[in-house]
Amino acid sequence: MFNDTTAEELSQVMEDAWEAFHVYRKLSLKQRADFMRSIAVEMENAGDELIQTAMQETNLPEARLRGERARTIFQLNSYAQFCESGQWLEARIDTAVADKVPAKPDLRKMLVPLGPVVVFGASNFPFAYSTAGGDTACAFAAGCPVIVKAHPAHAQTSELVAAAISRAAANCYLPKGIFAHVHGASSATGEALVKHHYTKAVGFTGSFAGGKQLFDWGNQRKEPIPVFAEMGSVNPVFLLPEKISVSAVDTAKQYALSITQGVGQFCTNPGVIIGIDNNDLDQFIETLAAEINNIAPAAMLHPGIYKSYVEKRAAVISQPDVAMIAVSATDAGLNEGTPTIASTTATAFLANPMLQQEVFGPYSIVVRCADMKEMMAVALQLEGQLTSTLMATENDMLQYEPLLEAVKNLCGRLIMNGIPTGVEVCLSMQHGGPFPATTDSRFTSVGADGIKRFARPVAFQNWSDSFLPDELKNSNPLGIWRTVNNELTKEKIG
Amino acid sequence: MFNDTTAEELSQVMEDAWEAFHVYRKLSLKQRADFMRSIAVEMENAGDELIQTAMQETNLPEARLRGERARTIFQLNSYAQFCESGQWLEARIDTAVADKVPAKPDLRKMLVPLGPVVVFGASNFPFAYSTAGGDTACAFAAGCPVIVKAHPAHAQTSELVAAAISRAAANCYLPKGIFAHVHGASSATGEALVKHHYTKAVGFTGSFAGGKQLFDWGNQRKEPIPVFAEMGSVNPVFLLPEKISVSAVDTAKQYALSITQGVGQFCTNPGVIIGIDNNDLDQFIETLAAEINNIAPAAMLHPGIYKSYVEKRAAVISQPDVAMIAVSATDAGLNEGTPTIASTTATAFLANPMLQQEVFGPYSIVVRCADMKEMMAVALQLEGQLTSTLMATENDMLQYEPLLEAVKNLCGRLIMNGIPTGVEVCLSMQHGGPFPATTDSRFTSVGADGIKRFARPVAFQNWSDSFLPDELKNSNPLGIWRTVNNELTKEKIG
Repeated sequence: MFNDTTAEELSQVMEDAWEAFHVYRKLSLKQRADFMRSIAVEMENAGDELIQTAMQETNLPEARLRGERARTIFQLNSYAQFCESGQWLEARIDTAVADKVPAKPDLRKMLVPLGPVVVFGASNFPFAYSTAGGDTACAFAAGCPVIVKAHPAHAQTSELVAAAISRAAANCYLPKGIFAHVHGASSATGEALVKHHYTKAVGFTGSFAGGKQLFDWGNQRKEPIPVFAEMGSVNPVFLLPEKISVSAVDTAKQYALSITQGVGQFCTNPGVIIGIDNNDLDQFIETLAAEINNIAPAAMLHPGIYKSYVEKRAAVISQPDVAMIAVSATDAGLNEGTPTIASTTATAFLANPMLQQEVFGPYSIVVRCADMKEMMAVALQLEGQLTSTLMATENDMLQYEPLLEAVKNLCGRLIMNGIPTGVEVCLSMQHGGPFPATTDSRFTSVGADGIKRFARPVAFQNWSDSFLPDELKNSNPLGIWRTVNNELTKEKIG
Repeated sequence: MFNDTTAEELSQVMEDAWEAFHVYRKLSLKQRADFMRSIAVEMENAGDELIQTAMQETNLPEARLRGERARTIFQLNSYAQFCESGQWLEARIDTAVADKVPAKPDLRKMLVPLGPVVVFGASNFPFAYSTAGGDTACAFAAGCPVIVKAHPAHAQTSELVAAAISRAAANCYLPKGIFAHVHGASSATGEALVKHHYTKAVGFTGSFAGGKQLFDWGNQRKEPIPVFAEMGSVNPVFLLPEKISVSAVDTAKQYALSITQGVGQFCTNPGVIIGIDNNDLDQFIETLAAEINNIAPAAMLHPGIYKSYVEKRAAVISQPDVAMIAVSATDAGLNEGTPTIASTTATAFLANPMLQQEVFGPYSIVVRCADMKEMMAVALQLEGQLTSTLMATENDMLQYEPLLEAVKNLCGRLIMNGIPTGVEVCLSMQHGGPFPATTDSRFTSVGADGIKRFARPVAFQNWSDSFLPDELKNSNPLGIWRTVNNELTKEKIG
């Protein structure tokens, strides 16, 4: 549908981005925020055409896409506000102490942008984690130009969003290199982008194979760069004994919805449910099976995701000691993912790495543990996760504290008595986690703290006040929070 | 002198560290801080024996070593205080909003430790960046056990410091796995440590070759881990025209001392000095030459560093268009590094990467630029640096703003009218910089912000207050700074 961006075009794009970087990074926080707010307005202005195009390309329903656009606009506006607050700059000031031996110089530090950021759009979030999505918003807030590699599964949607960003850039009189949009059907385009010497960071949301490849390319460069790849996870749910004895039915109903929401195409889909093998778990499974039976298959994002779902599901179900316990009663149409629940024993789960892998789609496997010792063994063996969930009463929490600690150690977000799907956009959100959930557990891709992926500290030593950035001047003209001689304050100095 | 730690011993060390991690990470900030303060006391208790041993192993003079121990103790105590303040935890709280659609859950986030950290001691800082140095202090503050690989050049000193840490661990009733000290003459020990599956992060200060190897090992693991390697730099100094016209002599005297301080064995040694080729620069060079002439050679840290200095210096000086302009008038004794100044043209410097490489020792090269355009070309071509320095009047700063911006973009610390040697330990220090100065410009290895290399955020969603960590409880029992519903505050909630 779109021609691949040529090597010559890519080279020009990166030259333009580098040039724009030197203009954009000097703009004020307010100017960056104004640009982001202008993108939000232009996303709205893109109107119904944007929604209709995305519906055609992704099979996602209109309400979901309208909601996702609203979320994307909220991200742009709320990150803009956080950008402007300056809190994320980690401004630190230590004033000079002349009578120390040797004399202590005046030192002032704040975050500055890394440089051009390459963003790879996610197939499952055509707006919120694609062209003008979270990574792009964070990079613009940090002061970095952005080059988006359009996701081929929604390239036309991406074009429309790119046009909205370009209109916003024009509204704000920014150099054209502030944003670029490129296409590439093969991985060659991505490789060229990640390895280009003007690229200084990468943001990605998608598969393990894709993310790990970008990470490796980033590290193999002569000048390695940070690649933040969010690569999904199985988001284990631990059903603790007392909780499940009092709410097996409610929990099962809640989870049937979470597992099948958006045809299971969320990074936080609960893919593994771990319980103690007893009558309560039987009741949970029975209810879950009945619910899943009643949920119809639905079209997945694109044929590739559908094919992968069918293959991975089949591979897991054919493993020894795995039983299919529920499947939608409705026949699947073209590219429709069928809600499916499997079950296995903890022994089989612990022995077979394939059972621990993500099956991206409306699928979950229930792991029957003989006792809490086996549940603990599962918690200790699981790889890094975006989320983990404890379904637990207060008694459960008190009684099984070591499990709680083990689960905390493997994930980025720990949910009590809830579902992992539904990622709130706010400062306290952590959407990240130990490898292989992401390539760097120290950062998040949801919430304004994601800005820090694309910024680095610079310390100014012994600078005249008039040449310091406004953020670090004595008078604190921007009124931002700063740590002055170890105390957080908005006060001016002297 | 010490036997290499065997593979079996390493395996046990890592098992112990992993076990200790699960105890230590649950201790309060105060308990971590108490441990760090106890190490500081035990460093003092190690007494003269520690100083004498380090003098024998490193050739560093007594006063320097006493000062460095005091600095190490200051680091431990000041990072302990910062640890206890809780400010670095980045506590973020967003309270629930029931009437939002969908309902917004209660979310609370803070940093938690990554896990066991492997620290490689630096040869040039036997105390401050070795066994109980900055990386170790940061890891303990973050809540991580530490495994130190002793630097072979001061293995006995390292043993004494390790004993001090072990006494502190015993004082604080910590599990023995909280700290381990291993030896290895070959790189096999380091490789095994970095690649061990219980190792979750690495800290290193040293050569580019060493740091890059550790970084590659860390990324090649099945589960990649963050490796923060500080690998030094040439710390360019830009002599701006008006400044050098009014203070060529003073600047030269100041720099003769900075270049030769500690026999030039600092990561922040000014290795490249860039000026405009005119009479003022001649006067600067003349004075610098006279000063260097009068500074005697001194013993370097160990024969390997001496040999490398002699070889690299000879290699640079034999390049085309490089002139030797000053050398100490005193003959060098065994393993003594001879203060040396070379000069070259900007044309030669820009064309020959070898001239841009670090020559670790009392050496600097003066780059003569035909004009400011050439100086700008040098600034744009230099690789990532720990520091850059501008010797400049206010007129220079106003007139050459693009140079200032270019220089800012290449380093972690930007000094105005000063010297880069002397790294103040305070919160606003940035000791880091774009690759190859470090492997990740987003972090620092000096100052308490270095703690964040070893910690990651975890979000708690929908947790009962009583099960939350104290740092996130409604009542804010620790009285720490938290961002509550986007506002920084120490107030309790509700």
